Amino acid sequence: MSIGQSMHDLIRRLFPINRSLTGKGFRKSLEIIKEYVSGLEIKHIESGEKCFDWTVPDEWDVEEAYLEEVDSGKRIVDFRNNNLHLVGYSIPVDVVLNFEELDKHLHYREDLPDAIPYVTSYYNPYWGFCLSYNQYKNLDRNKKYRAVIKSRLFRGVLNYGEIIIKGKTDKEIFFSTYLCHPSMANNELSGPVMAAFLANYVKERKDNKYTYRFIFIPETIGSICYISKNLENMKKNIVAGFVLTCCGDEGKFSYVPSRYGDTIADKVALNLLKYELDEFKEYSFLDRGSDERQYCSPGVDLPVCSVMRSKYGTFKEYHTSLDNLDFVTPKGLEETFEFYKKVINILENNDICVSNILCEPQMGKRGLYNTISHMGRTGSVKLMMDFIAYADGRNDLIDIANILNCSAYNLLEIKNILLKNNLIEKSDV
Amino acid sequence: MSIGQSMHDLIRRLFPINRSLTGKGFRKSLEIIKEYVSGLEIKHIESGEKCFDWTVPDEWDVEEAYLEEVDSGKRIVDFRNNNLHLVGYSIPVDVVLNFEELDKHLHYREDLPDAIPYVTSYYNPYWGFCLSYNQYKNLDRNKKYRAVIKSRLFRGVLNYGEIIIKGKTDKEIFFSTYLCHPSMANNELSGPVMAAFLANYVKERKDNKYTYRFIFIPETIGSICYISKNLENMKKNIVAGFVLTCCGDEGKFSYVPSRYGDTIADKVALNLLKYELDEFKEYSFLDRGSDERQYCSPGVDLPVCSVMRSKYGTFKEYHTSLDNLDFVTPKGLEETFEFYKKVINILENNDICVSNILCEPQMGKRGLYNTISHMGRTGSVKLMMDFIAYADGRNDLIDIANILNCSAYNLLEIKNILLKNNLIEKSDV
Amino acid sequence: MSIGQSMHDLIRRLFPINRSLTGKGFRKSLEIIKEYVSGLEIKHIESGEKCFDWTVPDEWDVEEAYLEEVDSGKRIVDFRNNNLHLVGYSIPVDVVLNFEELDKHLHYREDLPDAIPYVTSYYNPYWGFCLSYNQYKNLDRNKKYRAVIKSRLFRGVLNYGEIIIKGKTDKEIFFSTYLCHPSMANNELSGPVMAAFLANYVKERKDNKYTYRFIFIPETIGSICYISKNLENMKKNIVAGFVLTCCGDEGKFSYVPSRYGDTIADKVALNLLKYELDEFKEYSFLDRGSDERQYCSPGVDLPVCSVMRSKYGTFKEYHTSLDNLDFVTPKGLEETFEFYKKVINILENNDICVSNILCEPQMGKRGLYNTISHMGRTGSVKLMMDFIAYADGRNDLIDIANILNCSAYNLLEIKNILLKNNLIEKSDV
Repeated sequence: MSIGQSMHDLIRRLFPINRSLTGKGFRKSLEIIKEYVSGLEIKHIESGEKCFDWTVPDEWDVEEAYLEEVDSGKRIVDFRNNNLHLVGYSIPVDVVLNFEELDKHLHYREDLPDAIPYVTSYYNPYWGFCLSYNQYKNLDRNKKYRAVIKSRLFRGVLNYGEIIIKGKTDKEIFFSTYLCHPSMANNELSGPVMAAFLANYVKERKDNKYTYRFIFIPETIGSICYISKNLENMKKNIVAGFVLTCCGDEGKFSYVPSRYGDTIADKVALNLLKYELDEFKEYSFLDRGSDERQYCSPGVDLPVCSVMRSKYGTFKEYHTSLDNLDFVTPKGLEETFEFYKKVINILENNDICVSNILCEPQMGKRGLYNTISHMGRTGSVKLMMDFIAYADGRNDLIDIANILNCSAYNLLEIKNILLKNNLIEKSDV
Repeated sequence: MSIGQSMHDLIRRLFPINRSLTGKGFRKSLEIIKEYVSGLEIKHIESGEKCFDWTVPDEWDVEEAYLEEVDSGKRIVDFRNNNLHLVGYSIPVDVVLNFEELDKHLHYREDLPDAIPYVTSYYNPYWGFCLSYNQYKNLDRNKKYRAVIKSRLFRGVLNYGEIIIKGKTDKEIFFSTYLCHPSMANNELSGPVMAAFLANYVKERKDNKYTYRFIFIPETIGSICYISKNLENMKKNIVAGFVLTCCGDEGKFSYVPSRYGDTIADKVALNLLKYELDEFKEYSFLDRGSDERQYCSPGVDLPVCSVMRSKYGTFKEYHTSLDNLDFVTPKGLEETFEFYKKVINILENNDICVSNILCEPQMGKRGLYNTISHMGRTGSVKLMMDFIAYADGRNDLIDIANILNCSAYNLLEIKNILLKNNLIEKSDV
Repeated sequence: MSIGQSMHDLIRRLFPINRSLTGKGFRKSLEIIKEYVSGLEIKHIESGEKCFDWTVPDEWDVEEAYLEEVDSGKRIVDFRNNNLHLVGYSIPVDVVLNFEELDKHLHYREDLPDAIPYVTSYYNPYWGFCLSYNQYKNLDRNKKYRAVIKSRLFRGVLNYGEIIIKGKTDKEIFFSTYLCHPSMANNELSGPVMAAFLANYVKERKDNKYTYRFIFIPETIGSICYISKNLENMKKNIVAGFVLTCCGDEGKFSYVPSRYGDTIADKVALNLLKYELDEFKEYSFLDRGSDERQYCSPGVDLPVCSVMRSKYGTFKEYHTSLDNLDFVTPKGLEETFEFYKKVINILENNDICVSNILCEPQMGKRGLYNTISHMGRTGSVKLMMDFIAYADGRNDLIDIANILNCSAYNLLEIKNILLKNNLIEKSDV
């Protein structure tokens, strides 16, 4: 089975669970992921704890929630059918209302008449239901309705998952993804599933130079809490980081840079986006919208950017029931997975190399004129000579690739041949 | 009455006076301006004094000047009717000439047949008359003419006006304008009148951080003299300066940068020109033509640029009698005045601010989601979050505005809200 | 006789000689050049000597070489008729072959049916003949052929020419050209002939500030050997250097930058290319192909670029018998010579000058308003004032020219007037 299909299967398994910032669904999802990623630790922070400017919210639990027509007893919407029907963090209620009163608690999208929208109210106590506009417009304006939400908000915990895969150095590559969305597939189950499969890829990879940190958090409050617990270590060790989100559809790759777009994470992302893809969409940091908001905030200043497919907020299915198991595909997932594998391989090999020889080396006596069968003789020899020309201690692998107008991934083989033939050496070890 | 109309009225009052580098007309004009700007000091430097490579010229005074046909006694041109008729700094003469001899002393513009051109000969002893081409071509080539110029060149003084408005610091914002042109309105009465009204605006402004220096000088020799007397203080204190000229017509705003275009003056000018106006014309320092030639010369190196309307030399009315009270308008004057008010307000508020909080602040608990009524909720919250994201100690207000692709003026309110809520603080105080 | 014609005559004289990396032809060519450039030293390195990664090859000598049809005894090709017929560095052979066997040793260009291609095999022992495709296709496939090459490969020497013309300082301007090509005119006799004439120009020039080094080497192995003998001195002294090649046709000027395109050599080349020519072609260092490959290699790092006419490899006549005495012209040679004369004159005058006067000087009192007859008054005075404005210690002559959007050559006269009038002075002496 293709890796894309395996990822899609995991999304399918996680899809029905009701997740939110906190609660059973989040924990259950972590446990399922842990089945795939051994070594994943499930951690928590207690409700009420202060993290920078924020306070960890109460845990939220839902037993049942529905809306019914009082006369007929007909269920209008039921949380059991689709967890998007309930506004996230709804407070408990059991009340009979006329339509006018009820209307203030109903959410729909007139522009997407079949979609149930995704709505939350984490920090402002409120209750509400979400339904399709088609259903909404057919509600009888003269009936009475009973709204029942058996939810609990209580001092519990906020959970998150973390796995740290040790490499030769303490310097880290960081991947952050969020698991707090209920039944939606691209935004957001594609991110956690991508993180899970990348973690396994890293574990299987031989001789990692870097240590890898993967975290599965609730968005915003999760990254704020995580940073507040780990800032010193993160600042000390993280070399490059990525927010994994919206990575399962087949849309064009999209890139949101770090605050100044000048980190190693941006550098590797941009080289691969430019030279490995036919096209991609480059956003500004002003378009940011996920946890890079925290990682790249002043004083935190982590080298984190985001490469995704169709960016959150730009596709019509976003934050509705249309973001479903059809919207993400094995093909989309696998392409994104391949991209991040290249990211990892470039980062692991992004050495500054220096030529070992003054003037050009004599390639002929080393039999290096047609070593690489899949390139024409001119191609590979020219790449080798150009690589050596810029192996002057000023450039890492990505710098050289940028000068040579090619993907750094394309140069990995060249670099290894040159190293093996002792024509260059790493200057940073 | 609108401020534009008040400015136009002052131009109207100053218009008829015969001004030159030196003399009664310059002094009288300064005295009239002093009626509007209390505290303006009228200073002088004596003829013959050395200022760098230059010598202060003799004072020039004109009692009367005319040209008449000898036969008929008909006055051809009379200085009394329009002071442009007399070449500036003409030496005294009383002579009868045939047309051929006279012709060497006549100036007209064949391309602008109704206009009397503005001509001077400050450093080369000469006399001459200026008249319209229509009048010139009708002169009888067979008559004799008498040219009478009762002028005096004598060791007197070169005057200039200066007002220094103290702020909290000795650091200065500098405005320089020139008053040496006779009856022309845009180039140049708009500049001194703009300076006068800006000086009053500054005086009325509360809590100025900066000290403001306004000077009213004769062009070139005036700035050279002024610099020679004040260089040390100017270099020590001036943070940003502007040459005020050609600011009363309704043409497109124009910008002449400082020598390298990299001073605070350029920075504030460019941000406002880009984001507060639909369009503007950007010139090169190679197009300079007024006192920035001196302020930006090597070794002087003051941070001075110029924002004007139609640039000197680019409009057909320039240096002719067509540059009259119709060419400058209350609307044009007021628009330029508003621009410079913004320049002042940005400079006064161009602090480097730093975020007080790690990660994003929780705006909801501060009620900051719809504070600014004239912006949509998204708009103002997004601007606040973006402002904070770049409040990292690297950027002043204008830098942040440039990153956010907006006018720094637009961010003043945002900055004040963030300061008041203690979300940012000034790092440079 | 024009200098272009003189250069062409020297090319004509050198043309028939069989040159290669080593051998009699190379030596004889150097001796002819020495007749023109007194003081040229003919030096050598012995076969077998190690130079960095390379070994000096054996000397190659050819007595005769031909291909004949065995039956008829008809000579197919004869080295005596055109030295391009023999593959360079062919080993000795005397063998009878059928056509199929012979075919592996024949070289032709199907795309240029009249041209004899230029082929070498310096480091891989081999023999072969080159002929036109028209001749090749008419060879009888059923005949037997005898291939005779009376060549010798023996421990001899690799020769090169060198002349060092002392200036006031030890700092050097460097010109490198290669003489290892047999009967071709643009690539490569134009380079050595250009070098010879430039060396004479430099010798006749008065008061050279710089010392000039001209070398005439075999390509690649020659520069590698030369660098290996002279690296320390070259790194210490060379301020700017140029590879002279392909400079005799009438094609557009072409420019190959140094490794980062940021040396003084690049700076002077680019200013002149931009402002002295209507158009030119700018290549990348990735397009390099001559001895700049060695001069600009990591650790060697010499400030060397190349300005030529049609670049090697881009014109159809390249490396064939079509690159003949018609392809290079006196006009093409002379234009390139004039270009490099300007390069030399700019480099000799590329001082950092600083204004001697605060504020603008008074030009009138020095009579500098119409000093330069061939420029309008505005033109020369404006250039002088603009020159002074940027004579602030930050800019050399080329920098100022770039800011003023003109050729540095155009500013030489202006600079001298300003120096003579003591308005500026050199800050770097």
